[in-house]
Formats: sequence, C-alpha cells, structure tokens
Amino acid sequence: MTDYDRPHHLILGGARSGKSAFAEREALATSGAAERFIYIATAEAHDDAMAARIAHHRAHRDARWQTVEAPLQLGATLVQHDAPDTVILVDCLSLWLSNALAADCWEAERAGLIEALSACRGRVLLVSNEVGSGVVPLGELSRVFVDEAGRLHQALAGLCARVSLVVAGLPLDLKSSAPS
Amino acid sequence: MTDYDRPHHLILGGARSGKSAFAEREALATSGAAERFIYIATAEAHDDAMAARIAHHRAHRDARWQTVEAPLQLGATLVQHDAPDTVILVDCLSLWLSNALAADCWEAERAGLIEALSACRGRVLLVSNEVGSGVVPLGELSRVFVDEAGRLHQALAGLCARVSLVVAGLPLDLKSSAPS
Amino acid sequence: MTDYDRPHHLILGGARSGKSAFAEREALATSGAAERFIYIATAEAHDDAMAARIAHHRAHRDARWQTVEAPLQLGATLVQHDAPDTVILVDCLSLWLSNALAADCWEAERAGLIEALSACRGRVLLVSNEVGSGVVPLGELSRVFVDEAGRLHQALAGLCARVSLVVAGLPLDLKSSAPS
Repeated sequence: MTDYDRPHHLILGGARSGKSAFAEREALATSGAAERFIYIATAEAHDDAMAARIAHHRAHRDARWQTVEAPLQLGATLVQHDAPDTVILVDCLSLWLSNALAADCWEAERAGLIEALSACRGRVLLVSNEVGSGVVPLGELSRVFVDEAGRLHQALAGLCARVSLVVAGLPLDLKSSAPS
Repeated sequence: MTDYDRPHHLILGGARSGKSAFAEREALATSGAAERFIYIATAEAHDDAMAARIAHHRAHRDARWQTVEAPLQLGATLVQHDAPDTVILVDCLSLWLSNALAADCWEAERAGLIEALSACRGRVLLVSNEVGSGVVPLGELSRVFVDEAGRLHQALAGLCARVSLVVAGLPLDLKSSAPS
Repeated sequence: MTDYDRPHHLILGGARSGKSAFAEREALATSGAAERFIYIATAEAHDDAMAARIAHHRAHRDARWQTVEAPLQLGATLVQHDAPDTVILVDCLSLWLSNALAADCWEAERAGLIEALSACRGRVLLVSNEVGSGVVPLGELSRVFVDEAGRLHQALAGLCARVSLVVAGLPLDLKSSAPS
C-alpha cells in the first residue's frame, strides 16, 4: 500500500471556516458502502457556553453518526472503533491537543494517534484548526500550542491521501489522490 | 436564476494582503458595460491615523469610483445605490462588523445585508478580512468578532458566484462560475 | 527580461507550516546546474532556546548548503554572494523584518533588498511567515510588523516568478511561470 492508497483525509481551516460541516458532508458523500459512521468528539464541556455548543452540534448532526467522546486517548479510541466498513470522523484535533498539553501527556497522545492511524483498516477524517497564520502569540503555552499543531499537521498530511484547507465553507485541495 | 448566475464576488484576505487593490482592479476590469461604480467605505475616522489612511486610499482610487460612507446600515445603502448598470464595491465587511458589534445591532445589520444582496440587480464585490487563522484570541469581544466573521463569510460565499482568497496580492479562487 | 523570466521564488506559510523544509527541497531539486548553494540565516540567538533551534536547523540541513548569517544588511549580503551559478535561500524574512524594526532601519533594509533582488543574476528563494490572517494584534509594534510584512510580501510577489503558500508541508501555487 503506497502513501496515496490511504483513504484518510485531513481537513484544516480557521475558526468558523465551515471545516466541520464540510467534513461531515464529505464523509457521508464519499464513503460508498460504509456501514458505520463514528463521530469522535474531543470537546469537554468546561462551562455552559461549551456545553451549549456541544449540544447544538450534536442535535444538528446527521442521524447516521454515532457519537463517542474522547478528550484524551484518541489513538486507543480509534483502534477500538476501527473496522473495514467504518468511517471515523475526529472533530477536532486542536481541542485534543489542548487537552493533552494541559494533562502533560502530549508526546504519548501524539504517538498513539500516529500509530493508530497507520494501522486503521477503515477510513478516518481528521478536522483541525489552522492556527499558525497570525502573529506569534504572547504566552509560552500558546507558542507551544501553535508549534505542536503545525508539526502535527505536517506529520498527518504525510499519512493522509487527501488534505483540504477550508475557507468560507469552501475547500482548497492541498493534496489529493491522482485520478486513475 | 441559479446560485451560480449571481455575479457577486466575495474577496477575503489577511491584513495588507492586497485584497482591496485586487477588488478595485477586478471590479473595473470585469464589469463590461457598467456605467456607475460605487465605492461603499465602512471605515470611520476615530483618530488621525485612521483619517490619514482613509484620505490616502481615497486619493489613490480610480476616478471612476463614487465614494459613499456607510459605517452602519449597509443593506439599506446597497439597496439605495443598486441598479442593473451599477457595480458596488464594499470595503470592508470587517470594519462594518466591528461597528455593528460596538453599536449592538449586528443581527439586524447582518440580516439587512443578506436580504439586500439577494435582491441586488447590479454587481456587488465584498472585501473582508480573513481573521480566523491565528490562535483563538484573548477577550470575549475578539472571540465573538472572529466567530461572526467566519459565519458571515460562509453565508456570503453561498450568495456569491465567485470567492477569492488574496495572499501577497495574488488571488486564489475558492469558488468560480464554471466556464460555459 | 520580463517579470516572469525571473527565477526568484517567494515561499509563505504560517508557523511550523513546513515552509523552510519545502524551500530547501525545492532549491536543491529545481536548480539544475547550480554550483553553489548559499543559506542566508537571519536569526540571532538571543537566548538558549533560539540557539538550540538554530543549531538544530543547521545540523539537519543538506551538506551542500553554505550558511551565512545576516540578521541585517540583507541586500548587501545578497549582492556579495550572488553569481549566475548560485542559488541563495533566505530564511526568513520575518525575523529580518523584526530585527530591522528593532534597529530602526527598516526603510533602508527594505529598499536594499528590493534593489539587490532586482539585480541578482543567480536564483533567490525567500521564506517568510504569513502573519496577517489572525485578529488585528494588540500593541502598536505588532500592528506595524503585520502591516509591513504584508506590504513586503506584495512587493516581492511582483519580483518573483513563483509564489507559494505552504500549509501542513504542502505548497499551494499562488503564482507560477506559465509552461512554455
């Protein structure tokens, strides 16, 4: 299996760029005979605003999605739900990165995701925030966050057959399998 | 009239990306037999630096443009100047969004623009700042600004035949009418 | 020589976007019979973290590169090393802009680079950070930095045959010479 045979898809975009809606549409529209759709949500409801946002997203999601919550242990969660007939959408990597930095387990989380992704037999779509195109942020934690997000995106782009940047709800293809 | 028949054009770009200059050139170059060119400026001169910047832009603008100032009531201003032979350039939506959030009338302003744009018989070009690709900003108002800008861009992208992202003065097409 | 005959290449990208690695690969892969590869590093080691990052980059660079340090006087450094058989990579313009703003010599530095670039007989690749796509930063110096970076990128894009935006290690072409 060459790099381009992998069906995984990395979807990047800024805040409110429409990247999650694009990922959901794309997963349902292009997954052929898939029989199961797993939605891995990495958000944790730390306050009411966040809880409301999570509930809003869940209520508006297509009924075919089964939601699983995984603020951490993302790799293990992927392995647990992966199957050849299964499409998994992870939304989003940025919150998971934040969770892992806060819990001081980023290296292990990162290695776990890379390993799980390389082994998955089903199709995985990964949504993540593009955060590196503003000025270098004040605060050491923000700088680490931006650096690690950028490095992660580069590593994942190498493991995905398709990489898209979403702007105003519209995808720009950064990498796509060549048409046969 | 299908979605793609609309001649409107949304032009996004970061700070000093050349988006305004691109929009002006594009409006003049591709508007065929248009007889009137209206420039709707949303900036207000709150200080001397801003006044100097506004005067500089105005002095360097092609003489065909007639400038109208509209820090608020953007939809009504569009309707007032719209005509089948008219090209209207709005520069920029980000300042208008700031003005409307500060004046606590964003919902009404937003609805007014969407309605006006859907009804316009002439051509409208809309310039706006891409602000969502840095880290999540500190401060509740900045977060609301980024969220509302992103949602607005998605909504407008659906109403425009063409959407461009300008980087270093160069446009990337995010959406364009299919060639016949 | 028309604008499009110039072989220079401007490479933009966010933090940790993979722009430097792309620039190095591109320079080595597409420079044909070039005999010398000069790497102009604009970073200064102000602290241990920066010194470690510089050493890391230098150790991982292809052995063909000869490294020259130029935190300022970038134009003069280009002229000094330029030759028809030489490829020069400048990494990165953002640090040089920071250095020049701090030393209060930005106008002279900027003019020096533009003049040198127009006169170069060899090929120059310029790496720079895309910093204008977040919210307008707090702090006057940050705003000046974002404004000047954006203006510089526009000016350089006009002097380069090729302009790329790197996201997740993958290049988007913003400008490229037309195939003959």
